[in-house]
Amino acid sequence: MTELDAVKAALKTQAVETPSWAYGNSGTRFKVFAQQGVPRDPREKLADAAKVHEFTGAAPTVALHIPWDKVDDYAALAKHAEELGLRLGTVNSNTFQDDAYKLGSVCHPDAAVRRKALDHLLECVDIMDATGSKDLKLWLADGTNYPGQDDIRARQDRLAEGLAAVYGRLGDDQRLLLEYKLFEPAFYSTDVPDWGTAYAHCLKLGEKAQVVVDTGHHAPGTNIEFIVATLLRERKLGAFDFNSRFYADDDLMAGAADPFQLFRIMYEVVRGGGFTPEIAFMLDQCHNIEAKIPAIIRSVMNVQEATAKALLVDRDALARAQAAGDVLDANAVLMDAYNTDVRPLLAEVREELGLDPDPMGAYRRSGWQEHIVATRVGGTQAGWGA
Amino acid sequence: MTELDAVKAALKTQAVETPSWAYGNSGTRFKVFAQQGVPRDPREKLADAAKVHEFTGAAPTVALHIPWDKVDDYAALAKHAEELGLRLGTVNSNTFQDDAYKLGSVCHPDAAVRRKALDHLLECVDIMDATGSKDLKLWLADGTNYPGQDDIRARQDRLAEGLAAVYGRLGDDQRLLLEYKLFEPAFYSTDVPDWGTAYAHCLKLGEKAQVVVDTGHHAPGTNIEFIVATLLRERKLGAFDFNSRFYADDDLMAGAADPFQLFRIMYEVVRGGGFTPEIAFMLDQCHNIEAKIPAIIRSVMNVQEATAKALLVDRDALARAQAAGDVLDANAVLMDAYNTDVRPLLAEVREELGLDPDPMGAYRRSGWQEHIVATRVGGTQAGWGA
Amino acid sequence: MTELDAVKAALKTQAVETPSWAYGNSGTRFKVFAQQGVPRDPREKLADAAKVHEFTGAAPTVALHIPWDKVDDYAALAKHAEELGLRLGTVNSNTFQDDAYKLGSVCHPDAAVRRKALDHLLECVDIMDATGSKDLKLWLADGTNYPGQDDIRARQDRLAEGLAAVYGRLGDDQRLLLEYKLFEPAFYSTDVPDWGTAYAHCLKLGEKAQVVVDTGHHAPGTNIEFIVATLLRERKLGAFDFNSRFYADDDLMAGAADPFQLFRIMYEVVRGGGFTPEIAFMLDQCHNIEAKIPAIIRSVMNVQEATAKALLVDRDALARAQAAGDVLDANAVLMDAYNTDVRPLLAEVREELGLDPDPMGAYRRSGWQEHIVATRVGGTQAGWGA
Amino acid sequence: MTELDAVKAALKTQAVETPSWAYGNSGTRFKVFAQQGVPRDPREKLADAAKVHEFTGAAPTVALHIPWDKVDDYAALAKHAEELGLRLGTVNSNTFQDDAYKLGSVCHPDAAVRRKALDHLLECVDIMDATGSKDLKLWLADGTNYPGQDDIRARQDRLAEGLAAVYGRLGDDQRLLLEYKLFEPAFYSTDVPDWGTAYAHCLKLGEKAQVVVDTGHHAPGTNIEFIVATLLRERKLGAFDFNSRFYADDDLMAGAADPFQLFRIMYEVVRGGGFTPEIAFMLDQCHNIEAKIPAIIRSVMNVQEATAKALLVDRDALARAQAAGDVLDANAVLMDAYNTDVRPLLAEVREELGLDPDPMGAYRRSGWQEHIVATRVGGTQAGWGA
Repeated sequence: MTELDAVKAALKTQAVETPSWAYGNSGTRFKVFAQQGVPRDPREKLADAAKVHEFTGAAPTVALHIPWDKVDDYAALAKHAEELGLRLGTVNSNTFQDDAYKLGSVCHPDAAVRRKALDHLLECVDIMDATGSKDLKLWLADGTNYPGQDDIRARQDRLAEGLAAVYGRLGDDQRLLLEYKLFEPAFYSTDVPDWGTAYAHCLKLGEKAQVVVDTGHHAPGTNIEFIVATLLRERKLGAFDFNSRFYADDDLMAGAADPFQLFRIMYEVVRGGGFTPEIAFMLDQCHNIEAKIPAIIRSVMNVQEATAKALLVDRDALARAQAAGDVLDANAVLMDAYNTDVRPLLAEVREELGLDPDPMGAYRRSGWQEHIVATRVGGTQAGWGA
Repeated sequence: MTELDAVKAALKTQAVETPSWAYGNSGTRFKVFAQQGVPRDPREKLADAAKVHEFTGAAPTVALHIPWDKVDDYAALAKHAEELGLRLGTVNSNTFQDDAYKLGSVCHPDAAVRRKALDHLLECVDIMDATGSKDLKLWLADGTNYPGQDDIRARQDRLAEGLAAVYGRLGDDQRLLLEYKLFEPAFYSTDVPDWGTAYAHCLKLGEKAQVVVDTGHHAPGTNIEFIVATLLRERKLGAFDFNSRFYADDDLMAGAADPFQLFRIMYEVVRGGGFTPEIAFMLDQCHNIEAKIPAIIRSVMNVQEATAKALLVDRDALARAQAAGDVLDANAVLMDAYNTDVRPLLAEVREELGLDPDPMGAYRRSGWQEHIVATRVGGTQAGWGA
Repeated sequence: MTELDAVKAALKTQAVETPSWAYGNSGTRFKVFAQQGVPRDPREKLADAAKVHEFTGAAPTVALHIPWDKVDDYAALAKHAEELGLRLGTVNSNTFQDDAYKLGSVCHPDAAVRRKALDHLLECVDIMDATGSKDLKLWLADGTNYPGQDDIRARQDRLAEGLAAVYGRLGDDQRLLLEYKLFEPAFYSTDVPDWGTAYAHCLKLGEKAQVVVDTGHHAPGTNIEFIVATLLRERKLGAFDFNSRFYADDDLMAGAADPFQLFRIMYEVVRGGGFTPEIAFMLDQCHNIEAKIPAIIRSVMNVQEATAKALLVDRDALARAQAAGDVLDANAVLMDAYNTDVRPLLAEVREELGLDPDPMGAYRRSGWQEHIVATRVGGTQAGWGA
Repeated sequence: MTELDAVKAALKTQAVETPSWAYGNSGTRFKVFAQQGVPRDPREKLADAAKVHEFTGAAPTVALHIPWDKVDDYAALAKHAEELGLRLGTVNSNTFQDDAYKLGSVCHPDAAVRRKALDHLLECVDIMDATGSKDLKLWLADGTNYPGQDDIRARQDRLAEGLAAVYGRLGDDQRLLLEYKLFEPAFYSTDVPDWGTAYAHCLKLGEKAQVVVDTGHHAPGTNIEFIVATLLRERKLGAFDFNSRFYADDDLMAGAADPFQLFRIMYEVVRGGGFTPEIAFMLDQCHNIEAKIPAIIRSVMNVQEATAKALLVDRDALARAQAAGDVLDANAVLMDAYNTDVRPLLAEVREELGLDPDPMGAYRRSGWQEHIVATRVGGTQAGWGA
């Protein structure tokens, strides 16, 4: 097999999980602009996700968010997904939208609120059992807005206790994925603000606890690919939440703000042996003003392009230049791959998979957008408040 | 008059405008936690504002936000305010919550949307005529989320045109206050992102156009007091929106995140001759998790404390040390004022004004909070979505 | 002429000015790592610059830095440059390395120091007269390290006075280019910290005063292309200092840290009519650890590649998508150009100019590096301290 | 003992280590402004440090930096310190100023350079044996400037190997203190960029490896007191390097840029049981433009004032408000302590220790500054290049 064939073979295996909530409405604190044709229930979200997979061939699983995707029969939902050619993926918990969570969830000063939050997390594992999902993703909005508001350290103790209780409930092949975030919605302290905190907790929990890197959750200037390389080296990288940002957690399309950064991240993934099914590559985005399904297709394609470039890096040449301490040559090897236009290569990969080489055009021509706008009338559109 | 008497006299004249919307519910994109007793209409907001003024003696005016404070008869509202011992202050426009504004308002690519936005701004001036408000504050949420989405420069042309139309409608003693903001809700480009842009537009508009400094609207590391000093020197500082932040536009209580910064800002105000009624000192905050009225009282007090310290700076000693190039001495003069505990001084000022020396305690003891919780039952609470 | 021909024609006119000091040693406050073969005087710097121009065809001018490039006979230096196929470009002043400037130069509290700084600036105009340089670039390191250290506003008055004196000395076709920088070497306030301040001063000075955008001199998150578009609209953009950064003023090779940003900047230049000889496109970089001449060649190439992509943007298609409010299509038009591999196009351009299509390889094969290492032995290498 | 007596007793035990290099010249990459009277050798540095301790009573130890403080006989130096009323403290290694370290030290791609760096680190432990120092502080300037320049992950492997070799050489009561830093002098990747990386390495090394928090080494917006609380909870906080910053690693006087932050840090220290001799409280600052000895005295005083305020927090009241979820009350308890003017209290503490209540004035009146200016003439002043 030639090297290019190996790259193409790798690209054919790539899978990007799409989040059910990205198909629904989202916005900023100032306004949620509703879009026509937005799904009104989990099945309609899956129908949209099936289109993304149909045209990219690279989005076979869908992440759920509880309670936004609450249904009576999760096994039935999983079966429905299967009929659409999809699988249900990560289960995302929500401990930030109930009125009780104003001051936190598992870190709340009141034991009753902590119990309520824990019950929700345990319920999520029940749902995983029903859907066959392997991963529980915890993003905790816990934190404080004012110095002194609560005891930073005591909150860590409560956090550790809550995480341990959830961890103990996991099945043998289930994982707890812990996500960190610098700030928002908390504006002074956040209880899991950085990879170090997530790592320290996961380390104590055990092998089934892994860290999630959301590419929009860091302080300005943070070298994210360094964190990726480090977590892979520590065997503690569990998943990605891809999106992009210029300022804070902007949740723009992956690869839209800094495509070179996405490439560098994917290079560290490839180099560190992370391009495997053990790492969950998810999107976590908000399409506030752009059409949602095409935005998700574009995002999947952006991840594919960054991955293709990362796979094309001439690692032998790179290793030689690095060993020789030749700064410019080593940089040039990396840039050669980045500067390559990989769109023709990916078009070939798609054709070899029996797909249209142009997913955006294929979706546009499919009539799906017109269909959902015409038929999804009435009811309540899905959104974060749902 | 001794120097301390002069400081006290100055403090007695201080007025901080409170925003009607801070009395209502607010939150993040993740959740708005409603609070009991929140006003349901502009009159109830004024009632709360009257309490803030009653206990601080320093909050005589209230800023309106249109359409959140829309009423049939603005003159009647102004009269009602007067009966409560208040005046209606700045009118704040809103060109970001109508569905039409998804891609902008006065900068929108579609002339019809620009016209709609302009009509709203002109309506705000009509309201000013009715309420006797002197200032129209424009914060434009206009911007783009993705590179290429719109033409950055054409948007400036549209902006200039829209501003000119509003400016032309102002009465002789009315002003247009233009607010800048780095980002949010737009995540790639913002059409008035920094003081330079606001300044350039105001310069062309004329003397009645002035810049608003919102203390939460800058990039990390920005020296805000430098901007204040510069705008005062250019005679283009029109108003402040006080609040505080650790990360982005957190909208925490003024002085809560970096009290030393607030002091430095107030020092430049005092030094630059800005401690006059020509500059509007407003709060613009979100009390997402803390009790709203007490939070506003506390914020007014924080501004007062920063001002007191600024007034206490020994400017002769400072000038001598600065002229001598004595870095440590000059810094020490400033720090001496900052390190002074001015709470006793402000307690005296309040007593001399016939107020309780402890506004927070006085409010708590007043029973107002219990009263509004008990009586404001039913109806729709005020909030950003209203 | 086809569109591609027009792009190629434009690229053939592109000129990037290289800075004399980038050929000498540089480093951080922690260490300057000297490199072999580094020039020891301005003529050797010009010899290296001539090689950059020889292999890129796009670096015909060299910026001087006084006193680092002080010589007895500037006319002779200009003539020497001409013999090497170069011209002398911008004259850069230095008011930060004399012991007198510890607390500033034209903003210093002591009038004697201000006079000394002004004399230096006027001397720089004398040098421009001798070299035929048209542009005087002022980067002022002035600022303060501690709150209170000096009077922020008085420093602006002194600054305005100093700039006016320099401006008055300019010849009819000479310009004053004012550069801004967020911080460093001053760590609390900087006297020209942002484009707004530079713009306000240039506006008062007159038409011959223009703003310099150094791509490494902004706060985190600043949208630099917005500033470029705005300054072009205001006819106040005079020059660029290209370099790249991940954190602060890192002075890495242009295009190395965020090639997408450089493309967006060049797109606004092209769109705003700034791709003309009226705008000086300079590099201002420090090659602390990499070989200097190849690093400068690579930087010129990176600017060329970003420019080529900017020129390739389908502006009609972009305008249509923007007018239609189609966020994804508009973004896609821009990204299509960015994702294009323009290296073959630039190789063609070079061949049509009679150059080697591969400047890096050509330089390597030329033997120049070995030559300078072998012959530049003894003496004192050029550097910032020189 | 009353509570105030307990606070005073605690303050009397406080010890802040001063760094030998802060007494010498320092600057930015643009200029080092030499000062008169600066020490020319380690003994003169100790003489200055003795003055800081004489007037503050709180600076009994001095950190050394090798090779800047290289002497033939370290035991003699330790004895000399003792005669001055001082002890030698932490030994700081330097693996960034030798020409060999251009691409790193213990992370360098070349094994010979790594060996050289390791030898230096082991030599530092030898020096500790001679001086009786207990702590070896490693700040590694290792990193890369360009993507691809070296293999991020391989550098971690080399780092782990180097640290293990040093750790193995430590005596029973010696510690390895590992310092992290976001960036500078490396501008793309840094090999120990954050607390998480330092923590992960220290965890594997063992109990004698601890993390150093330098207050100037974080990304914008980082909540440093959270890191302090977390490291104390993990029993991995070994030391502080105090200084302050507005932008990057500005190395200004501790408490000068954000005194509220320093207070919050000291509060977490006190609350987390970190106010013990097990944690080394050091300064690490650069007095580029201000008089050095007074700047160090001021810095020690600033740390004392922040500590006094932290000790004054009414922790019972705080705990009650926190448990009740009363955001404003809890914040108010903290702010009450912060807003207290603790200078009179510290003056009392000094008088009870037999010191002048005004260390700055006492130093000025002592004539030491005039003495060193007059007598330290000739020779080579100490500085980073020495």
